[in-house]
Amino acid sequence: MTARDSYRQLTEHMKDHWMLWSASFLAEWDQETYMPAGGGESRSRMLGMLARLSHEMSTDPKVDDWLSECESSDLAAGDTIEAANIRGLRRLYDRRTKLPKEFVEKEAELKSKARQTWVEARKKSDFSLFAPYLERTLDLQREKADLYGYEHEAYDALIDEFEPGATAVEIERVFQSLLPELVSLNAELRDAPRHPDIGILKRPYNVTKQRLFAEIVVDAIGYDFNEGRIDEVAHPFCTSFGPGDHRICTRYYPEDLAEGLTGAVHEAGHALYDMGLNREEYGLPCGDAMSLGLHESQSRLWENQVGRSRGFWEYFFPQAQRMFRDSLQEVTLEDFYHAMNYSAPSFIRVEADEATYNLHIMLRFDIERALIRGDLQVADIPGEWNKRFKDYFGLEVDRDSNGCLQDVHWSIGCFGYFPTYCLGNLYSAQFYAKANEELPGLESDFAHGDFCRLLKWLRENIHIHGSRYRSAELCRRVTGKPLSHQPLIDYLRSKYREIYGIG
Amino acid sequence: MTARDSYRQLTEHMKDHWMLWSASFLAEWDQETYMPAGGGESRSRMLGMLARLSHEMSTDPKVDDWLSECESSDLAAGDTIEAANIRGLRRLYDRRTKLPKEFVEKEAELKSKARQTWVEARKKSDFSLFAPYLERTLDLQREKADLYGYEHEAYDALIDEFEPGATAVEIERVFQSLLPELVSLNAELRDAPRHPDIGILKRPYNVTKQRLFAEIVVDAIGYDFNEGRIDEVAHPFCTSFGPGDHRICTRYYPEDLAEGLTGAVHEAGHALYDMGLNREEYGLPCGDAMSLGLHESQSRLWENQVGRSRGFWEYFFPQAQRMFRDSLQEVTLEDFYHAMNYSAPSFIRVEADEATYNLHIMLRFDIERALIRGDLQVADIPGEWNKRFKDYFGLEVDRDSNGCLQDVHWSIGCFGYFPTYCLGNLYSAQFYAKANEELPGLESDFAHGDFCRLLKWLRENIHIHGSRYRSAELCRRVTGKPLSHQPLIDYLRSKYREIYGIG
Repeated sequence: MTARDSYRQLTEHMKDHWMLWSASFLAEWDQETYMPAGGGESRSRMLGMLARLSHEMSTDPKVDDWLSECESSDLAAGDTIEAANIRGLRRLYDRRTKLPKEFVEKEAELKSKARQTWVEARKKSDFSLFAPYLERTLDLQREKADLYGYEHEAYDALIDEFEPGATAVEIERVFQSLLPELVSLNAELRDAPRHPDIGILKRPYNVTKQRLFAEIVVDAIGYDFNEGRIDEVAHPFCTSFGPGDHRICTRYYPEDLAEGLTGAVHEAGHALYDMGLNREEYGLPCGDAMSLGLHESQSRLWENQVGRSRGFWEYFFPQAQRMFRDSLQEVTLEDFYHAMNYSAPSFIRVEADEATYNLHIMLRFDIERALIRGDLQVADIPGEWNKRFKDYFGLEVDRDSNGCLQDVHWSIGCFGYFPTYCLGNLYSAQFYAKANEELPGLESDFAHGDFCRLLKWLRENIHIHGSRYRSAELCRRVTGKPLSHQPLIDYLRSKYREIYGIG
Repeated sequence: MTARDSYRQLTEHMKDHWMLWSASFLAEWDQETYMPAGGGESRSRMLGMLARLSHEMSTDPKVDDWLSECESSDLAAGDTIEAANIRGLRRLYDRRTKLPKEFVEKEAELKSKARQTWVEARKKSDFSLFAPYLERTLDLQREKADLYGYEHEAYDALIDEFEPGATAVEIERVFQSLLPELVSLNAELRDAPRHPDIGILKRPYNVTKQRLFAEIVVDAIGYDFNEGRIDEVAHPFCTSFGPGDHRICTRYYPEDLAEGLTGAVHEAGHALYDMGLNREEYGLPCGDAMSLGLHESQSRLWENQVGRSRGFWEYFFPQAQRMFRDSLQEVTLEDFYHAMNYSAPSFIRVEADEATYNLHIMLRFDIERALIRGDLQVADIPGEWNKRFKDYFGLEVDRDSNGCLQDVHWSIGCFGYFPTYCLGNLYSAQFYAKANEELPGLESDFAHGDFCRLLKWLRENIHIHGSRYRSAELCRRVTGKPLSHQPLIDYLRSKYREIYGIG
């Protein structure tokens, strides 16, 4: 058998295996949108079975054989789609076979209990309830890192799950440059001469009209309703079931225009990435998103750099005003644009604005890294959290449910996940700055309702590659530079200073 | 390994295999309800993969080994759930392994082409276009029957796919008794002194209100919305994704009250059967419906015997009248009840009423049986069809699209499927007659909105058994008699004569 035959058999097998994932994404989508309550137990069984079967397929020893054949041939060399697929599939195979079945079962069991306990602890705002489960979760995370293996520190092995190839040291380099700049920008904003009137967005906005408005907006930026739809759920997300089927799930609030709309645009940004992937490679690394951080860079770019820009609202505000006449007829474009960019320090990450969001992440990054290293004890988390929160935001955390108990991630063993949110923001700013350099006058496109040039640029430079290049490498290829804090801080400083009348 | 161990492994394996079917039912449901048009190609691949994988699991030689272990033990003896599961799984395994891969591929390819040609032929009402594909389909059907094997005639092997254990001779016995009686009843109706005013049902009925009314009605008869939901589709169906998740898909017409409502009640009848299956046995024969005929008996019973009864409308007509005031305020209960039971001969099977429907089936049964036997040539189908149609209905078929080209079934190789519709009607009448015998005053329950006694009786006597007994055996167990035409003709004659003022 030639290496080419092995490659064909390998990729056909892995594409088949991916169909089981597609089926389980569909089952999860249905669970969140339309499934009747009574279907929960059957659904868990279906999802469990699909996960088990896809795991069996991807860890079949044949996969290892095919991979070895490919790896010892020319196919694995050079900058080709084939070579990238082989590298990506090897990584997948190795990671999946490195965790013994007993470990996976032990982790699943703990995850379920720890999550339930976290829900209870957050409700009572009592960290001590959750602490013993977090201890055990950390033990398992360290064990998992050892099973996966790593070069510098255990935390790297965990980050790698969500952001392949990224390391704590590299992330730290960028975060440490960003942190003081962000803290100082936020201090400037606190003492600024003027503040937007957020109240404009907190008036009654008919939900039926919000739905329609969100559809108009995401359609305009390039989301193709022939290949997707919007449904409503408790917690927004975006999911894909294969080329040609990319669904947005979001929610609307009757007295908040920004939440629903920016949520829809954010998810549409994710969907646009998926819509731009290489269809031929669907089910293989080069037909799949590179990383959580890169995926988030696309959602954030459309949500923030585009969806909160003046040009964007020059086009859409008059439409919003006609649609939501009662709440917007007296409002000026300028006041509306300012309100869309309101910033204020707050306890809860998921409610944070662009200027404060990354501070929430950097705090978590330092804490979880120290926990994995053993430099910080679980019992000391609340104290450490609250001290840092005061330093970064100037606020005293009033209770743990507003502090270290707010996020689900640690309870379900997601260590190394948080930094991808901030990486997404950093990539989005660096990509967007480059797009502006290469495509002068981009924002005046938006003012005319034209988003094609930007979308085409993103498709050609980012989307089409899928996982062909690691995020850090893609960043260098696209922007000519390694990831840096500079584009993000420049963007935030320039936008916010103007809006807040600073300097 | 003991036989008990084999049984456990066998049933676990087959339950797992069934999860793949559940997942593909969900994917099909989504395809009909919410999938964007662009998702079609990906969906075909997903469904193909799920079908292939489930086929591999169910034809794994281990299944044969486990079955043989079980069959040579006490587990396979007597009237137990275990023995019935073993018999059912053996049948499944044998049928799935009897068709060689090449045959299955050849059949799938022909099916796809034949179906497309049938669509074209029906549009042009030109049977000659379809004829060569039907010839080849018949060749494959005969080849399939030979592969499956049969005792009396090839057609039996095809019927067995849809109605396990049924034979053409047995079906013929009942159909031959029913036919002259039905023809004579229909002649009586044509010359009857009075005819219902069907126009009552063909007025404007607001679709939003129809949706609500259908939900109220199916909820009242026992369909549990905690374990289901109603969505809208082009062609109504009912589907299940496991215990606790049974979905109705139907459609409403703005100027027809009966179509939408009876469609919803029909599908709810299917769902009630599935809701009543043995949850513990889900994924095994005893947790699954026996046959298409038996499934149809449940939908027909609720649609017709219940949903077109006077008692039913005594309860629901006042509610309908309040809801659809403009169209129903001048209408009497009696006139409405009569309109719901309007009958007239017509060309199209799917639009036929209770009194004429079975004639459509019996005509098809004779023709397809003769085709498989070779007693009828494809070229002679239109002539044979039209001659019989004139005999049964007193109507001249004006064109083949209103005659032998109307149904999709033959184009997709479904021979032996049609009789199950009529078997469903026969079983429904026989079961309902027995229920009335054992539960006096049933229809006055309905008049008070109470359907519990009937549902409980169906659950205990029919639903809970799943495929434990073959339909014919279940019929004898439940009603004490073999299947007969008598209960159906008695029911139709008594209802229609009264409504049409005959005798």
